[in-house]
Amino acid sequence: MNVLIVHAHPEPQSFTTAMKDLAVQELSNAGHQVEVSDLYAMNFNPVASAADFGSRKNPDYLVYALEQRINYENQTIAPDIAAEIEKLVAADLVIFSFPLYWFSIPAILKGWIDRVLVSGLTYGGKRFYDQGGLKGKKALLSFTLGGREHMFGADAIHGEIETMLRPVLRGTLYYVGMDVLPPFIGYHVPYISPEARQQILEDYKQYLQNLDQLQPLEFPTLDQFDDKLYPKKGEH
Amino acid sequence: MNVLIVHAHPEPQSFTTAMKDLAVQELSNAGHQVEVSDLYAMNFNPVASAADFGSRKNPDYLVYALEQRINYENQTIAPDIAAEIEKLVAADLVIFSFPLYWFSIPAILKGWIDRVLVSGLTYGGKRFYDQGGLKGKKALLSFTLGGREHMFGADAIHGEIETMLRPVLRGTLYYVGMDVLPPFIGYHVPYISPEARQQILEDYKQYLQNLDQLQPLEFPTLDQFDDKLYPKKGEH
Repeated sequence: MNVLIVHAHPEPQSFTTAMKDLAVQELSNAGHQVEVSDLYAMNFNPVASAADFGSRKNPDYLVYALEQRINYENQTIAPDIAAEIEKLVAADLVIFSFPLYWFSIPAILKGWIDRVLVSGLTYGGKRFYDQGGLKGKKALLSFTLGGREHMFGADAIHGEIETMLRPVLRGTLYYVGMDVLPPFIGYHVPYISPEARQQILEDYKQYLQNLDQLQPLEFPTLDQFDDKLYPKKGEH
Repeated sequence: MNVLIVHAHPEPQSFTTAMKDLAVQELSNAGHQVEVSDLYAMNFNPVASAADFGSRKNPDYLVYALEQRINYENQTIAPDIAAEIEKLVAADLVIFSFPLYWFSIPAILKGWIDRVLVSGLTYGGKRFYDQGGLKGKKALLSFTLGGREHMFGADAIHGEIETMLRPVLRGTLYYVGMDVLPPFIGYHVPYISPEARQQILEDYKQYLQNLDQLQPLEFPTLDQFDDKLYPKKGEH
């Protein structure tokens, strides 16, 4: 497999970085090709703007997704975006490695999504969900957070972690057609012992060795909806 | 009231910008003080990093939230963050104005949240949800999207919009204690007629005139959970 790890942590010595390094090592040892986009190290620009486009379909009024599609087709999209797209297209598995900020991804990683998941290539019209442009690729969120595991769940104070992450898991990764694997989560990381951290690394190693056995998360498929995307009668 | 509008759109002529301008006009006419942070116009830096801190509790290892708290207390936090905090503290109502990107907020706005909602001031320890540091303030998401209204809802293809937005509505705005008003949403904006856009502006005007009547969204409160944040017995 070709693996792309998109990593976003402001501290190079962080535990999240140790998890990323472990993934590089384990997946390389298993014979996979691993590429890393370390967004902080790259000083990646997360701000979607007119500067992303070398040419303009409409120079007077920016419709970002439209210009993405045209500029991707014409190979006039900004070089930093083109470089990330190239890695993405080559990848069979994309791992997103980050600390949870506000129950979501850090801004620098959100900007990677905003800018790199270009219209045309990754989605467009009815090409989304199980028909998305990145169909056949797998995606995995691998992240750390401060809260404890019991703070997440149906009756827990923050509800299900998968629900908090819905805009990423379903609204982004599944939207572009990827098989979204269950997230790997390091809980309570800032507060735990070195031994507990070591255990998380062991668990992650196991997780990575069993990637093939993991069932992707389940989401609605387009065949459950009619041409105008209303639910088909009797199916709901 | 003091109102802060945090606006994030890369096209100054956009409909989202027209909605923001309407809010400025309507709220000013009603006698409120309105401040706007136009993040694109300000060239706002969304990337949380060590550069945000004029001093360091731990210069060798960055724990972002820890340094936020200390640097906010010591008034050594980066000037662009300090300026936004000052506006935030003065505000009774904060309106977030943006186009929906990937069922969430654009990266530049996520970065405003990552950097401006500092630990210590806005949350810390058991100071979250109904006990959050910004208790007493109101928050409103006002945004545009490409999808149609029937694509959102319990049986709809993308599920409930409030669920997609949970990390912002509950995980961020309610987390810091704000009363979160029901979002105002302009659907299908890139594809609709000028008349339909005018209708959205009329609806938004009405919405803004009735802000006082709106009930905040309901979320769990800390008294439903015990000291370790497990659900109290019999309450769930």
